[in-house]
Amino acid sequence: MVGGGIGASIGPVHRMALRLDGEAEIVAGAFSSNPEKSKESASQLGVAPERSYDDYRQMAKAESKLSEGERIDFAVIVTPNTSHFEMALLLLESGFHVVCEKPMGVTFDQAKTLQAAVRNTRKILMLPHAYTGYPMVKQAKHLVHSGELGKIRKVVVQYYQGWVPYRLKVQAVPSKAWKFDPAFTGPSLTVADIGIHAENLARYVTGLEIEELCADSTSFLAGQGLEDDASVLVHYKGGARGLLHFSQMATGERNGLVLRVYGDKKSLAWAQETPESLTVCDLSRMDSILHKGGPYLCDQARAAGRLPLGHPDGLVEAFANLYLAFFEAIRNPGRDAGSEREDFPDVDDGVIGMGFVEAVLESSRSDKKWIRMKC
Amino acid sequence: MVGGGIGASIGPVHRMALRLDGEAEIVAGAFSSNPEKSKESASQLGVAPERSYDDYRQMAKAESKLSEGERIDFAVIVTPNTSHFEMALLLLESGFHVVCEKPMGVTFDQAKTLQAAVRNTRKILMLPHAYTGYPMVKQAKHLVHSGELGKIRKVVVQYYQGWVPYRLKVQAVPSKAWKFDPAFTGPSLTVADIGIHAENLARYVTGLEIEELCADSTSFLAGQGLEDDASVLVHYKGGARGLLHFSQMATGERNGLVLRVYGDKKSLAWAQETPESLTVCDLSRMDSILHKGGPYLCDQARAAGRLPLGHPDGLVEAFANLYLAFFEAIRNPGRDAGSEREDFPDVDDGVIGMGFVEAVLESSRSDKKWIRMKC
Amino acid sequence: MVGGGIGASIGPVHRMALRLDGEAEIVAGAFSSNPEKSKESASQLGVAPERSYDDYRQMAKAESKLSEGERIDFAVIVTPNTSHFEMALLLLESGFHVVCEKPMGVTFDQAKTLQAAVRNTRKILMLPHAYTGYPMVKQAKHLVHSGELGKIRKVVVQYYQGWVPYRLKVQAVPSKAWKFDPAFTGPSLTVADIGIHAENLARYVTGLEIEELCADSTSFLAGQGLEDDASVLVHYKGGARGLLHFSQMATGERNGLVLRVYGDKKSLAWAQETPESLTVCDLSRMDSILHKGGPYLCDQARAAGRLPLGHPDGLVEAFANLYLAFFEAIRNPGRDAGSEREDFPDVDDGVIGMGFVEAVLESSRSDKKWIRMKC
Amino acid sequence: MVGGGIGASIGPVHRMALRLDGEAEIVAGAFSSNPEKSKESASQLGVAPERSYDDYRQMAKAESKLSEGERIDFAVIVTPNTSHFEMALLLLESGFHVVCEKPMGVTFDQAKTLQAAVRNTRKILMLPHAYTGYPMVKQAKHLVHSGELGKIRKVVVQYYQGWVPYRLKVQAVPSKAWKFDPAFTGPSLTVADIGIHAENLARYVTGLEIEELCADSTSFLAGQGLEDDASVLVHYKGGARGLLHFSQMATGERNGLVLRVYGDKKSLAWAQETPESLTVCDLSRMDSILHKGGPYLCDQARAAGRLPLGHPDGLVEAFANLYLAFFEAIRNPGRDAGSEREDFPDVDDGVIGMGFVEAVLESSRSDKKWIRMKC
Repeated sequence: MVGGGIGASIGPVHRMALRLDGEAEIVAGAFSSNPEKSKESASQLGVAPERSYDDYRQMAKAESKLSEGERIDFAVIVTPNTSHFEMALLLLESGFHVVCEKPMGVTFDQAKTLQAAVRNTRKILMLPHAYTGYPMVKQAKHLVHSGELGKIRKVVVQYYQGWVPYRLKVQAVPSKAWKFDPAFTGPSLTVADIGIHAENLARYVTGLEIEELCADSTSFLAGQGLEDDASVLVHYKGGARGLLHFSQMATGERNGLVLRVYGDKKSLAWAQETPESLTVCDLSRMDSILHKGGPYLCDQARAAGRLPLGHPDGLVEAFANLYLAFFEAIRNPGRDAGSEREDFPDVDDGVIGMGFVEAVLESSRSDKKWIRMKC
Repeated sequence: MVGGGIGASIGPVHRMALRLDGEAEIVAGAFSSNPEKSKESASQLGVAPERSYDDYRQMAKAESKLSEGERIDFAVIVTPNTSHFEMALLLLESGFHVVCEKPMGVTFDQAKTLQAAVRNTRKILMLPHAYTGYPMVKQAKHLVHSGELGKIRKVVVQYYQGWVPYRLKVQAVPSKAWKFDPAFTGPSLTVADIGIHAENLARYVTGLEIEELCADSTSFLAGQGLEDDASVLVHYKGGARGLLHFSQMATGERNGLVLRVYGDKKSLAWAQETPESLTVCDLSRMDSILHKGGPYLCDQARAAGRLPLGHPDGLVEAFANLYLAFFEAIRNPGRDAGSEREDFPDVDDGVIGMGFVEAVLESSRSDKKWIRMKC
Repeated sequence: MVGGGIGASIGPVHRMALRLDGEAEIVAGAFSSNPEKSKESASQLGVAPERSYDDYRQMAKAESKLSEGERIDFAVIVTPNTSHFEMALLLLESGFHVVCEKPMGVTFDQAKTLQAAVRNTRKILMLPHAYTGYPMVKQAKHLVHSGELGKIRKVVVQYYQGWVPYRLKVQAVPSKAWKFDPAFTGPSLTVADIGIHAENLARYVTGLEIEELCADSTSFLAGQGLEDDASVLVHYKGGARGLLHFSQMATGERNGLVLRVYGDKKSLAWAQETPESLTVCDLSRMDSILHKGGPYLCDQARAAGRLPLGHPDGLVEAFANLYLAFFEAIRNPGRDAGSEREDFPDVDDGVIGMGFVEAVLESSRSDKKWIRMKC
Repeated sequence: MVGGGIGASIGPVHRMALRLDGEAEIVAGAFSSNPEKSKESASQLGVAPERSYDDYRQMAKAESKLSEGERIDFAVIVTPNTSHFEMALLLLESGFHVVCEKPMGVTFDQAKTLQAAVRNTRKILMLPHAYTGYPMVKQAKHLVHSGELGKIRKVVVQYYQGWVPYRLKVQAVPSKAWKFDPAFTGPSLTVADIGIHAENLARYVTGLEIEELCADSTSFLAGQGLEDDASVLVHYKGGARGLLHFSQMATGERNGLVLRVYGDKKSLAWAQETPESLTVCDLSRMDSILHKGGPYLCDQARAAGRLPLGHPDGLVEAFANLYLAFFEAIRNPGRDAGSEREDFPDVDDGVIGMGFVEAVLESSRSDKKWIRMKC
């Protein structure tokens, strides 16, 4: 693990997710840019002192010298955004599979470079769009792909958070906090942080790819030119319309990611804060509420559920589902990307995500024209 | 009443609303373009045969000859859109107050003409944006105007209905049904039908006026160039951002009008299908749920509630609240527009609404530029 | 109308409900035990001074002398409980149909006497268990009676209100307020006020009749021996079990009436505070949400809805549905009780309700034995 | 681990819960009464062959011979009910801490015997009433104990499941399935399975102890005299009233555990299927919705949350919270039962639970008298 030391927020989530099924453990790490803190974190995590490294370069070098059975199988990168690209690239090229926190770099070109590295090294890069690990998201995907919704006409994803005003106004965080500092966070705050989740979720469920988009982003509170609110009009290939909108200055919102998909036979709605159910509506406008664990779910949704009906799974379990698929892919090196066995977001999703970030920023800047997605 | 005969949908709603408080009754009408049907409707409604008219012109003429105590005080227009303008204009000029179903005509110029007519005749025109009559919408307005939400930064209104696919696919209505025929419905289906409710609700609650907008509208099912889906990016005067999106081809949706307003201290959310409650969220992201009838509501919200806490009022009661304010304005001819006593949508709202319709259509057509609102 | 003058709470609701469809108006009344207040109320309501009476006896006498077309058709009694019996009896015997607020007296014997009077006079007594007028309650009844739920095994009704602590602690009402004074309210506060709604709703929907019950009631706040909380275990005839529980000292509750019925094929749930929808669950534990106005509803539920899908009806509309059925019964004197045309609660429901009140009180007092229902 | 082999349902949940925080692992087990299946399970779980035992007796004997650092620290019993007592007793007496699935035996006397064994051996027995591990349940407890709700007057817990009709009617399970066989399940199906969760949850949150109860239980579908539905009227010590009702033949219900507590200042409501929020209502009948991760939560609720606001934790995380407290207690042998550090259900809860089961069955049988709780 790179990053994720004492006091970190996303590192512990990765650790719970990869530990949950007893298939992996943390054996080495460079847990902090501060060597003291890194050592202390290693000790708390039960990592042997000699495998607690000062930085990722040292770790890559030392681990790659160990024997195959001894050295790490994969590295998890949970550092600020601007460091993702270099770390992921070196670790891939050093022969390790990589789990890289999103965003997968800070430019589209970095993403393309990583995509090429994955192809050259034949290693796997997982990008934890963890929401796609929820059972009812898999059921939503199934309903679209099995044709039950009919032709998809409209996709709406909203993703609203209110932590920016809470931190700035209530906690009064120093303005140099990394999330608000472009030197660490890159050129985009909200699009790169949650907008790409919205795009990824819409695409995971519907399979639709963006042809062009028109965006309006604003910096209300974040400062330094970092947007904290954006709305994006979308034209999907094939004629469907989309609306992706997200905000991190939305006072009072927790983690309000909501997906709605309208087909010409049925529609569906799913909300991340109540992930155990999925609402399906038909032409007559009766609603059906499907629940995690229901005997009527598709195989994949059933397999992704850990507890029975009415016993809530959480995001850690969704996250662990991604890890399970990642482990399965590691064990089966003849890769079969896109198969159900390899049901996790990968480097190709990262390329699309970074293309989305750049298109939204460009559209917002340049007199709000419709922008075609790069690919 | 003009229109609203046997089989009509919105006419009976007006009748329940104006009857509810015992302050008005229907005494005359031209209930249908078919004279037989009009007579029969009059008979069923207890209207005297001699005051059942063949058309609105005849009604205007005959009624204006009656003595002041005998003739109608106001006329209610509940006919297809393209007829609204001429009817409203003649009735105003014949000396009657008018309740005109929205949209207030089919062009911005018609709306401006009616505005001038209202000023000249000193009569009142009410436009039934009935949702503004709900007690909790009044409370929402109060929370914004009293400063409890702080500075408003973002307004999102979604308004989704699914009747278009239901009618076309399940009921297989003839393509000439008036809603789908530009000769009756005018150049806009969805924006003119529900988009203007969304704009009106946002403005009623926040007081914000649109400076410019950028829209994407589509005709999926309606045909004849009539849009049935639209999303609108909004820049409000003063810097707030807005997102107004609406659809009538949204399979499975009933009457899904939802308002969310984000201030820098608090936010609020209100949904028309559960109109009795209002959610207010603070920076710490705790929610408060306020309920119609609560002792903590502002005076206007309390006055607008008819039944006590937990005993639901419906849309008819909200609608009747508009009528009560309209009656109050009629009784007090020294008009004091904008006062609490005159809390109903009027001809000025109609002008803004038609300006909104034209701007959305223009933006959607003309290479999706940002369009400034006319005024 | 007897009672319901200025400041009254339930009187205005009756007036809205009977006025809504334009089929009735208030033409006479004894609106208050205070003659001055009664006159003033009459004046406000547009009742002619000569038909504003000092008390119900005077009204019964004077009105019965008027010609059939002129005199009142029915009387509405909206006075404190202990007066209901005498008023209803005299008005029936004076030749008027009666709408009597529940409870229908304060003893089972009074109820039986009124039942006999109804049979003798061939007049109609309606008891406004208004919740049975909601469209989705009628749909619930349909689902049970059509066999869709299978054999009914369990019925649970909870009815919780929190106005007692609010009034006593926040408003600090004088202890002599009529609701808390047995001289006006009778021997039971909560069972007679809302417990009978719970019993009536369960019976309306399922048709099940109580064979025996075992209750535990308590007086927490109300004082004077008046219970403000009760739970009742029920054995229905035929083997189904029931649980009816209600409270008026339930801090924070508004008007929380919730019905759940479990059959051996499906179950249903309905909540009065969100009356527009009905949840139906099947063996696989998928939920279906049915909505007022849906094309899939039974005829009666469809007819009872006033506004289309997604446009909320309120309790006034439900109440008005009872009045419509009552008017229909008045117009068709060859009574056909129990038919769909006579779909309103009547004197027989009142007898069962009073039997329920007495059985609950007796079971609670007498060492908590199982008590058989009188009939 | 005893039981929990291939195909088991609750065993894997324990394994996820104890593994989540990296503080324990499964190193030995007797996973099935079938030795072949036990071996195969051990192999899948990575348990060394020599520590895969044929039964719990062999395990207890062999493990107790190992050195302190090597042998198991605690045993987890996840077998059918009738075996719990003997296993727990032997394991305690062999010097191991025990996690024993509920119910803690099948009679009150067994529970008392285990209580004595715990005291004698100074070992710890944890009983996984896992719902008490949820952060918002801890917040509920805090609100009661800090006095924010005022004096508690009424507690209502409902716990409804619909798996019995699903299994019997849809899956057509053989009648000898262990849950329906008194030889394995003991004398009580539903009270012992979920009724004790209801009692435990009410007591955990409020601290109230049952003085006497009056119950009505029924066997609708389960057969063999095993009740599948029960309602219990409760008198708590100190004057509060309770209503605990539960069913496993409630068609359509998933895992519907709902708690409501009414104090004289505020009330609260919590539902297990949406465990991340807690509703608090005040005298004015405004609701506040508190959320897991909120900065306003009490220390214990905050510590029990793993993911931030809006990122759902599940039941596994709640369960793991119990294990963390259990581990803490193991590490600190000077026990301080009842402290926050030892916040898990223990043998004393098991004694009360079995007393509850026996009292409910006795009250239901014996002419429905009020029964005093044993202690």
